[in-house]
Amino acid sequence: MRIDPFSLVIFGATGDLTQRKLYPALYNLCRENLLPENYSVVAIGRREKSQEQLEADIRNAVKQFSRENHHDEAQFGEFLSRFSYYQLEFNDSQGYSRLKTYLEEQEEIWHTEGNRIFFLAVAPEYFPVISDELHNHGMATNERSWQRLVVEKPFGQNLPSAIALNNDVRKTFAEENIYRIDHYLGKEMAQNIMVIRFANTLFEPLWNNRYIDHVQISLAETIGVEGRGPYYEQAGALRDMVQNHALQLLTLIAMEPPVSLDTESVRDEKVKVLRSLKIREQDVVRGQYGPDREGKLLGYRQEDRVSPQSQTETFVALKTTIHNFRWAGVPFYLRTGKRLPQKYTEIVISFKSLPGVLYFEQEDLGPNVLVIRLQPDEGIYLQFNAKRPGTHSLIQPVSMDFCQNCHNGFNSPEAYERLLYDVMRGDSTLFTRWDEVEYSWKFVDQIAQWWDTTTEPIPIYPSQTWGPRASAELLKKEGRDWLRFMETEVF
Amino acid sequence: MRIDPFSLVIFGATGDLTQRKLYPALYNLCRENLLPENYSVVAIGRREKSQEQLEADIRNAVKQFSRENHHDEAQFGEFLSRFSYYQLEFNDSQGYSRLKTYLEEQEEIWHTEGNRIFFLAVAPEYFPVISDELHNHGMATNERSWQRLVVEKPFGQNLPSAIALNNDVRKTFAEENIYRIDHYLGKEMAQNIMVIRFANTLFEPLWNNRYIDHVQISLAETIGVEGRGPYYEQAGALRDMVQNHALQLLTLIAMEPPVSLDTESVRDEKVKVLRSLKIREQDVVRGQYGPDREGKLLGYRQEDRVSPQSQTETFVALKTTIHNFRWAGVPFYLRTGKRLPQKYTEIVISFKSLPGVLYFEQEDLGPNVLVIRLQPDEGIYLQFNAKRPGTHSLIQPVSMDFCQNCHNGFNSPEAYERLLYDVMRGDSTLFTRWDEVEYSWKFVDQIAQWWDTTTEPIPIYPSQTWGPRASAELLKKEGRDWLRFMETEVF
Repeated sequence: MRIDPFSLVIFGATGDLTQRKLYPALYNLCRENLLPENYSVVAIGRREKSQEQLEADIRNAVKQFSRENHHDEAQFGEFLSRFSYYQLEFNDSQGYSRLKTYLEEQEEIWHTEGNRIFFLAVAPEYFPVISDELHNHGMATNERSWQRLVVEKPFGQNLPSAIALNNDVRKTFAEENIYRIDHYLGKEMAQNIMVIRFANTLFEPLWNNRYIDHVQISLAETIGVEGRGPYYEQAGALRDMVQNHALQLLTLIAMEPPVSLDTESVRDEKVKVLRSLKIREQDVVRGQYGPDREGKLLGYRQEDRVSPQSQTETFVALKTTIHNFRWAGVPFYLRTGKRLPQKYTEIVISFKSLPGVLYFEQEDLGPNVLVIRLQPDEGIYLQFNAKRPGTHSLIQPVSMDFCQNCHNGFNSPEAYERLLYDVMRGDSTLFTRWDEVEYSWKFVDQIAQWWDTTTEPIPIYPSQTWGPRASAELLKKEGRDWLRFMETEVF
Repeated sequence: MRIDPFSLVIFGATGDLTQRKLYPALYNLCRENLLPENYSVVAIGRREKSQEQLEADIRNAVKQFSRENHHDEAQFGEFLSRFSYYQLEFNDSQGYSRLKTYLEEQEEIWHTEGNRIFFLAVAPEYFPVISDELHNHGMATNERSWQRLVVEKPFGQNLPSAIALNNDVRKTFAEENIYRIDHYLGKEMAQNIMVIRFANTLFEPLWNNRYIDHVQISLAETIGVEGRGPYYEQAGALRDMVQNHALQLLTLIAMEPPVSLDTESVRDEKVKVLRSLKIREQDVVRGQYGPDREGKLLGYRQEDRVSPQSQTETFVALKTTIHNFRWAGVPFYLRTGKRLPQKYTEIVISFKSLPGVLYFEQEDLGPNVLVIRLQPDEGIYLQFNAKRPGTHSLIQPVSMDFCQNCHNGFNSPEAYERLLYDVMRGDSTLFTRWDEVEYSWKFVDQIAQWWDTTTEPIPIYPSQTWGPRASAELLKKEGRDWLRFMETEVF
């Protein structure tokens, strides 16, 4: 596929995201010859930085975080030469005038034809500022060239603020030129969900409430807020994880087959799922981590710049249902939390048991289970029943796994690699469209409202446990348990 | 489960089957404490043999062929003490009189209460002789005790001879006391077929002509006739492999769910499949092995005691269909042969592709495939489509396997272990009922008849190739190929 020449303009180039994700992703794309002949990267930050310092930064970032570690010095030098640094205070209007001139000079040098990707790797309060300045200085006119805006989560704080923000950036950028990143969608296994569903006779006919008992989506972290207290106090797990990642995975699992694989057809189906979601107050559980049982780890309220009376949730578990013919009666359980015992992201499809005849009459057989593991390793795991070897005819669950990491030498592309590549190509399938954001906020705002109006204090769970007791009870009362295949030998 | 005391009477105790299979199987059952407290084994042969020689034979057999190799000398000594040797010419009526007395003495010693298992590990021409003598000397009266007859294949040469043989043994033994061994049914994975089908939501709903494209059953051997020329000249691959093993596996794959898991319900369903089989003359391929291409191996006609003009088939491939609602339109391809490049037995379920939309519109995707491997290793293998890791969305087949051998330290019970155990317990589910034999012969006799009346000479295929060209063409003309998963890495 031919990719247009472009300049990538990174706002917030001295930040963590750029170091850890963007620089390594760009280098990997370069190594795989996926970049066009004509491109350049303008790194923008508030600090002063020389070209030497910039190149040292990039070299460092690639060394530390890239999956590609066979350097080819000549190629690497050429890659570095594409980068330049531009110092800017994000609210300094004068600076944008000079930036415009600078960009045009760079475009002259690298023949990038005015195509620009503005990547906002900055705090969300700068989104409208930067977008406005780009507009005011005519840097995104979309005439005889294209300009695309990439924004990181979170897109707003709730529906009203998201609408305001959206209206703001839409003054400058048309919807099709806005790329709202949900980096979970860039993960190999998230992209695999549609393939698993729609390219296999083994799964497609079974993908409905006749055969599926329930779905579990777990996004578990072991870390705490790690110095991001001020951000997290505003966000909480609901906005930080449920509104975007968890709901995005749910839509991929639940959506109807799209008319075609093009961007809008897929997004249309995802939005339909979000619009069909139902939730009840008694089906939502929140919690906040306290110290661990041995007292080695701080509780959330003891973290830096966190209120000692904070009611912010670091854990959410909920049951939601999808009000359509395919999924009526099938609960979708989501949970996410910080300071849990294990770090992993996993989707579990638990199939219904067959009617209680034959083997099901004789023994208490476990259900068939399909597990899609997104991280830390990537894989597909299948559990079904087979005869236990031996002269007696006992049945045991056996498991098969296809570990994507294993087969490919742990070299799957990073999410950002795929996502940057898609922005360059102008493919926004793996980004969230405005109405997806909108309906996600509607779902989440409803929950936030329940919490805002409750007088009950937030339950505290010890660090390194699986959240408050109510999370287990949410499933227990329906005769189910949270399933973890993380620990199974096969992975 | 309580097992009655019994005497096991082995006719043909000096033969290969007894050494290789029966002695080791008995020892394994002993090691696993599956034998009752009171049992004894009377080994009958035509040769003279002392108790010391007998014990040396057993010790040897166990050492060479048993999967259990941690000997416990005390236990082994006790095990050996249960065996005694009795010399008999199978047509010496006088000898049976003395045998009767001898058995009664042994039963006194070992408190086996008159229950007897007569295992005929002899050439088929002795079946009626021995059965008659047992009858005439009142050794199988089934009064206040039970007597069971175990016969090895082949049960007859064609339908008329099988009927004659059956009528003969039925004079002495009721149908429920006759155990016709098909040792393929004793294999772990053959027993697993029903479990896979009826204990899994992933497979049961898909097990029909709506989702399955075709089924392949391959029973491939690398050896030639190995000195068994006279037997093989009469039998050929059709009677030696298709009439029993191949058709038995087919019935397990194709049968309707039985009313229950009891013996007669399962056999009822298997018979229904055999009665519904259809075959056409043009869908049968035969062949006979010639020398290999390097001239190191003899052709079949050069083997010991084989006619230099022999028209006996050492290879059969055929397509059959099942005339019922579940399977109409789904071909079942069977093939078996000697001197093929690999030794394995495998059942391949090839699923239909999904309609040509979405991924099926974009790419030429392979079918989903379920493979049940019976030997040399035992396992279940599943192939489906997933996204290839990388920034491009190509799809590749990925495979999962559950290797039964691997997980259990290569210690699955041998077929004969399970089968002997079932005879002791009086469970004949894994043995073939008379009407199964009858309908199998009907199917096979039809093919034999076509061959008897043809003037075309039998096609010769080089040793170490996959049979005559017509075998591949049988599938090719329907757009299919013989599939072999034997070579895939995962196993």
